[in-house]
Amino acid sequence: MFGKNYILPQEARSLLFSSFSKPELAFHKLPIEECYNRVLAENIIASEDLPGFSRSTVDGYAVRSADTFGAKDTMPAYLSIKNEVFMGEPASFEISKGEAAKIPTGGMLPKGADAVLMLENAQAVSVDMIEAMKSVAPNENVILAGEDIQKGTQVLSKGRRLRAQDIGALAGLGITQVNVYRKPVVAIISTGDEILPASSVLQPGQVRDINSFTLTGLINDNGGIPVKKGIIKDEYDLIKKTLSDALESSDIVIVSGGTSAGVKDMTAAIINELGNPGVLFHGVAVKPGKPVIGAFIGNKPVIGLPGHPAATAVSFDMFVRPLLEVLCGLHKNKISKNFAYAKIKKSIASVAGREDHVRVALELEGDELYAVPVLGKSGLITTLVKADGVVVIPEGKLGIDAGEDVKVKLF
Amino acid sequence: MFGKNYILPQEARSLLFSSFSKPELAFHKLPIEECYNRVLAENIIASEDLPGFSRSTVDGYAVRSADTFGAKDTMPAYLSIKNEVFMGEPASFEISKGEAAKIPTGGMLPKGADAVLMLENAQAVSVDMIEAMKSVAPNENVILAGEDIQKGTQVLSKGRRLRAQDIGALAGLGITQVNVYRKPVVAIISTGDEILPASSVLQPGQVRDINSFTLTGLINDNGGIPVKKGIIKDEYDLIKKTLSDALESSDIVIVSGGTSAGVKDMTAAIINELGNPGVLFHGVAVKPGKPVIGAFIGNKPVIGLPGHPAATAVSFDMFVRPLLEVLCGLHKNKISKNFAYAKIKKSIASVAGREDHVRVALELEGDELYAVPVLGKSGLITTLVKADGVVVIPEGKLGIDAGEDVKVKLF
Repeated sequence: MFGKNYILPQEARSLLFSSFSKPELAFHKLPIEECYNRVLAENIIASEDLPGFSRSTVDGYAVRSADTFGAKDTMPAYLSIKNEVFMGEPASFEISKGEAAKIPTGGMLPKGADAVLMLENAQAVSVDMIEAMKSVAPNENVILAGEDIQKGTQVLSKGRRLRAQDIGALAGLGITQVNVYRKPVVAIISTGDEILPASSVLQPGQVRDINSFTLTGLINDNGGIPVKKGIIKDEYDLIKKTLSDALESSDIVIVSGGTSAGVKDMTAAIINELGNPGVLFHGVAVKPGKPVIGAFIGNKPVIGLPGHPAATAVSFDMFVRPLLEVLCGLHKNKISKNFAYAKIKKSIASVAGREDHVRVALELEGDELYAVPVLGKSGLITTLVKADGVVVIPEGKLGIDAGEDVKVKLF
Repeated sequence: MFGKNYILPQEARSLLFSSFSKPELAFHKLPIEECYNRVLAENIIASEDLPGFSRSTVDGYAVRSADTFGAKDTMPAYLSIKNEVFMGEPASFEISKGEAAKIPTGGMLPKGADAVLMLENAQAVSVDMIEAMKSVAPNENVILAGEDIQKGTQVLSKGRRLRAQDIGALAGLGITQVNVYRKPVVAIISTGDEILPASSVLQPGQVRDINSFTLTGLINDNGGIPVKKGIIKDEYDLIKKTLSDALESSDIVIVSGGTSAGVKDMTAAIINELGNPGVLFHGVAVKPGKPVIGAFIGNKPVIGLPGHPAATAVSFDMFVRPLLEVLCGLHKNKISKNFAYAKIKKSIASVAGREDHVRVALELEGDELYAVPVLGKSGLITTLVKADGVVVIPEGKLGIDAGEDVKVKLF
């Protein structure tokens, strides 16, 4: 099934990455409101403590913990109410031995106090006296100044994709603008004499452009800016001109379709003509997706993706996404969290020497998560529509038995 | 630790949902280019077959499979080349017994042919004669007309969040506009005398607004439109006016902070004054997050979230997200796929009668995924910054032992 020109996926990935040197990435300063899901281009060091003062985590009484030692219901400690802490105001008084001050959740701990007695563990004896019915340990019910973030520590590092809570932390530190990397531009060139725009009425032999729509979503989801370069007829000069233009204005170029025998040599020849090192591989032992082209023109990746819709998405994930992540400035993560563990519902056979990417739908039965194979030829977009992710059967494995644990790469 | 006013999380969720009747949701028609991640407001029925004609999935020869039966290397079948199929053009001829036509991947199968012989299994004998060195079964290497999507079938259903490949399928069917639900508006009212804008220089006792930034990201990520209503002082009339305005202009109102004893009764009183049914619960046996308020004014949800940053995110996930999903028009999914299975790295103790939401970081060791508890008080935003998700310990359980399998709800 696979001729001598097909290489293993792992080899293809190594070829691609060993030929690629990460370029100097451009970045710009943006207000944090615009930085959700953007990639940080600088390390963030706290220039102050968070919180800036010791705070109560409960409603109660600021106390000297030593004054409450041994206190219980049957033998309370008596404390005189010295004062009250108000929200948002400095506690400008001091607590001495035998004294307490009323304090709300989030209020500033006054000098002298080192813990807070919860309201429900105190009983008023008079207007200025309480019984502490429980002992509190030093620092109990208190967040110390700098306990969340200490001045001088690195809070977030370069290459992190900023999530909701990360932006919250920046706001808490008073950092209202940060440097983020510019989003890489990914050009999509759709090729094929049979491809028409989505709005077209078709004649026999013609199909509508599906892949540029799928790719647009995948590029967006992975932090890039998709730019469609149109549907180009399978003519040498047209493809060459479009590819040449796309190289000028984008960081990655995807040529969708045009990788099958009919025109594949043409696409490869054009790439090789446009610059070095040119085509690194053409054909990968993977199903679906074998006619993938991996190439560089200078240091710019040009990836030829197969025209079959399901193959497009799988090959994007294998070859384009990793490059896109580097160009987004993403720090090489130890793990991609975008997967789930499940049991495979049916046995699946695979062919040795080929990496199979089996599309699966996830189903929860009780507490057990199952991956149900979605069967269908790689040309079918519905296999992707029904699937939640992909299970990879490595080239050395002859299949998966029903009930086996599998790792599902989620879409 | 929990008084009689605290209810169990499951009870709180039931109260919330039994008091809520899903309103008529507004939708609008948009070009599919603008529909990525939007929720479909109509069922999509295919008005034509996809593909519209039978296509080859390989480069080769369109044949009558019966003509190749029994063919092999040592005993090939001879076929005369009748014609050639070109991409994007109708195959306007017919194949008869003993004939074949050259066909590219994606080409239209001519009449009479029912299979495609791969190029590598054919050998040219003369310009118009080949040897078939392998037999092909009927429909082999062919995608039949309608095999991907059959005319009249429902391709996508109302309430689905449209992914990249779903938009691809719409394009393939020539559907360039669809109805999607309008995004619900979620108002965020930040309360607290101690809270200042992120850009402020702080005095002792003051902290910056973290939560409106975290909530903005969470609302966006879950398909809503966040609208900040500002930081409001803990004054009855101010909060009442702001809440009243927010009810007019949004679909869900979040009151952040102001739920602790100091001011909590005020927030609850204001809600109750503004309409029925008012406050359904105030205080949930969950850690972090116990001072949550769940309320409706008319059919509009008003959720009071605790001021502690980590508690905010956990409570959002428990109470706001499910409501937001309904108001997005999302079909009640059988499963939320936003979780991972892992082994817990350390034992964690929990208190009976309380649901614990333990923040965890995911770490991959070899092929095993571990959930490492991120310890820290609920007031610490850094616990969220370090975490990848949350493990829930139900109220009936006294903890988790190291090595136990856990389900991690991912952020």
